[in-house]
Amino acid sequence: MYGHLRTDRLPEGYPQFFERGEGCHLWDVNGKRYVDFMCSWGPIVVGHGNPVVAEAVARQMAAGDCLNGPSERLVELAERLVGLIPHADWALFGKNGTDATTTCVTLARAASGKRKILVAEGAYHGAIPWCTPNQYGVTPEDRAHMLTFRFNDTGSLESAVQRAGDDLAGIVVSAFKHDFGKDQEMPDAAFARRARELCDANDAALIVDDVRAGFRLTMRGSWDLVGVQPDLSAWSKAIANGHALAAVTGNDRYREAASKLYVTGSFWCSAVSMAAALATLDVLESVDGPAHMRAMGQRLRDGIAAQSAEFGIGVRQSGPPQMPTVLFDDDPDCEKGNFFTLEALKHGAYLHPRHNMFLSTAHTEADIDFALNATREAFKALAAR
Amino acid sequence: MYGHLRTDRLPEGYPQFFERGEGCHLWDVNGKRYVDFMCSWGPIVVGHGNPVVAEAVARQMAAGDCLNGPSERLVELAERLVGLIPHADWALFGKNGTDATTTCVTLARAASGKRKILVAEGAYHGAIPWCTPNQYGVTPEDRAHMLTFRFNDTGSLESAVQRAGDDLAGIVVSAFKHDFGKDQEMPDAAFARRARELCDANDAALIVDDVRAGFRLTMRGSWDLVGVQPDLSAWSKAIANGHALAAVTGNDRYREAASKLYVTGSFWCSAVSMAAALATLDVLESVDGPAHMRAMGQRLRDGIAAQSAEFGIGVRQSGPPQMPTVLFDDDPDCEKGNFFTLEALKHGAYLHPRHNMFLSTAHTEADIDFALNATREAFKALAAR
Repeated sequence: MYGHLRTDRLPEGYPQFFERGEGCHLWDVNGKRYVDFMCSWGPIVVGHGNPVVAEAVARQMAAGDCLNGPSERLVELAERLVGLIPHADWALFGKNGTDATTTCVTLARAASGKRKILVAEGAYHGAIPWCTPNQYGVTPEDRAHMLTFRFNDTGSLESAVQRAGDDLAGIVVSAFKHDFGKDQEMPDAAFARRARELCDANDAALIVDDVRAGFRLTMRGSWDLVGVQPDLSAWSKAIANGHALAAVTGNDRYREAASKLYVTGSFWCSAVSMAAALATLDVLESVDGPAHMRAMGQRLRDGIAAQSAEFGIGVRQSGPPQMPTVLFDDDPDCEKGNFFTLEALKHGAYLHPRHNMFLSTAHTEADIDFALNATREAFKALAAR
Repeated sequence: MYGHLRTDRLPEGYPQFFERGEGCHLWDVNGKRYVDFMCSWGPIVVGHGNPVVAEAVARQMAAGDCLNGPSERLVELAERLVGLIPHADWALFGKNGTDATTTCVTLARAASGKRKILVAEGAYHGAIPWCTPNQYGVTPEDRAHMLTFRFNDTGSLESAVQRAGDDLAGIVVSAFKHDFGKDQEMPDAAFARRARELCDANDAALIVDDVRAGFRLTMRGSWDLVGVQPDLSAWSKAIANGHALAAVTGNDRYREAASKLYVTGSFWCSAVSMAAALATLDVLESVDGPAHMRAMGQRLRDGIAAQSAEFGIGVRQSGPPQMPTVLFDDDPDCEKGNFFTLEALKHGAYLHPRHNMFLSTAHTEADIDFALNATREAFKALAAR
C-alpha cells in the first residue's frame, strides 16, 4: 500500500481493508462496524451509499458513462458550479485533486507568461513532483519556481511576493491551514484580503485549493467566509460523494487561457461522476449540509472537551467543526493520540490521531453520542495507564 | 471543452455531446446512432454497458466504493495483474494514464538517484507539464531532464543514452508508435532489445507506456510481442472498460522504491473501478479479446483497402488492426480525411480522421460490414467531388 491510505501511518491495530459503507458507518473485512469520522479522507459528504446519489448514478450508468465526448451532465454541472460559487465564470473537470491544483498552477503561468508560484510552508497540494510532501524521486527543477510563505503571516507573504519580483504567476492557498499533525488555523481575513491585493497588484492568480474543504464549510467556496474571492479554485474530494471527480473553477480573466490549455485524461468527461456530483450538491443544499455538519462536529467537540476536563487530560481541538483535528497536549510523538484513537476504535469510533477528520450529513446526534461513548472509554483507558 | 475531447480538433459537424452507449453503438444527444470506432478514445474494450462488468459494478457499488482504505478487490486485481503480465511482481493503482506514467518516471528517478528520462519525439505520455504536447503554461525546468530519441531508431536511442551520461534514470517507450496524425509503427524487435540492453547497462528503468494499447494487442503487455520485458509499465484506458482506473506494474528491482514513494489520490483505492477491472479482464480472457479485436480490425482494414482500390483513392492503413489509423495519400492538411470521416459519420460510422481508432469485443462482423457500407458511401462521395 501507498500514499495516505497506507496503514503504517496509523497506530498498529487499525484495519487496512474495508468491506462495506452505509451512511456514516463503515465495516472492515472482519465485519467490525465503526462510526466513521474520516469519510474516506473527505469524499463521503452525504453518507456512504446515499440513496439520492445512488439513484442518479444507476440511472446515468444505464445510459452511458465514458463516451466519445461528455454528456449533458457536464454542462449541467458546470452551470451549477458557476451558479453556486461567486468567483466562478466557468468550470473544467478532472479526476484527482492533484489534477485540479496542477491545472490551476499551469493556467496561472499560461495566462501571465510568468513562472513563480507561492505556496504556504507545509501545505499539501497533491502528490506529483511539484507538490508531493515526499521528495523521493523529485528533482530540484521540479520545484525551481516554487517559493514559500507562512500561512496567515502577511509579512511573510509580502516578502515572498518581493522575492518573485516581476515573475509572480500565482499564489496558492489552502481553504484553511490543515497541515498533517498540526493544529489547524482558519484564514485570517486581513491576510486573505492582502493576498487578493498582492495578486491584483502583480497580475497574478489567487488560487484557493478547496480540494479538501470544498462543500463542507459553505457551498460558495471556503474563502467566501472571509469575504475574498479567488481567481481560480481547485475542487475534488466531497464534490461527488466518493465518485472520482475534480474541478477547476475560474473567473473570466482566466477563460481564454483555460480554453487554450491542453489538459485532459481518459475519464475526465465521464458522465456518472458528474451525475453523482449533481445529486450530491442537491442533497447538500436541501439539508443545508455545511450547517448540519457544523452542528454535529460541534456536538463531538463539546463532548470531547467535557471528557478532557473530566479526566484532566488536555487536548487541543482546532479547525472548523466540520473538519476537526484533536491533538493531545504534551504529546510530541503522538503517543497519547495513537493510544486514544486505538481505544476509540475498539469501541466502534474510527478517528484519526493526527489528520483532520470529516463529518458528513449522515452523522446524527445518536451517532455522535455513540462515538462520544467510545471516546469516553478511550479517555478512561488513557487516564488509567 | 478541453483536451482530446474538444471537437474543434474534429471536422465541423462532429457531435460533441453523447446520450447513451450500448455494445459498440453510441447515441449522440440528438438521438443519432453510430457504430463506434473510438471506444471513448480507448477505454471501452468489452462494449459500452457490458453486462458482466455492469453486474460486478452494481454488486460492488452496493457494498462500498470509496472507503477509508481499499477493499479486497485491490489485492485480487494486483494478484491478477502479477499473474497475467510477465514482468510484473507488484502493482499500484491510480486514476489517469498520466498518474501511471508520472509514477513510473518518479520511480525510475527515486530508485536510481539519477535524473535523465528519455522519451521518443512526438510521443504522447500525458497532459501535465513534464509531458503535455502543448507547452502553454509549461516552464523549461519542467522538462529540464527530458531527452528525446526517434522511435525505432537504435542509433538515435544510443546517442540519447550517451547524452544522458551517468545520469540516466529511465527510457520511456510507447507500446508502439501511435503519434497523432502520423502513420503508426510497431516496435522493431532489435530496437526493443537494444533499449532493454541500454537500460541494463546503465542501471536505468525500461518503462513501457501501455496506457493506450494495453489489453488490446495481448493480455501480457505489448512489448511481450517482441520478446522484451520492461521494468515498469503504465496502464489505464482499457483496464476497467471505462471506469476511471490506472495502474503501474513493476518488477522486484523497483519494489522497494515503490514502497517508499508518496503517490496517492482521493479515489485511488476505490473498489468499484477495481471490480470493473476484474470483470473486464475476465471477459477479455474468456473471449480472447485481443484475437477477436484483431479479426474485426482486419475485416475493417481489408474492406477499406478494397474500397480504396475500387475508387482509386489511396489510403495508408497502419498500426495493429485492433487500433487502426487510416490516412489518405496526398492529404497534408487532412482535408480528404476530414471529408471522408464526416461522410462516414452521416452514414452511421464514427471514425477519426487523424487519431488511431479502437476496436472492442462488442464489434461483430455485421457491425464491421455496416461500417464498411458507410465508408463505401464516403469513398463514393470523395470520388464524386
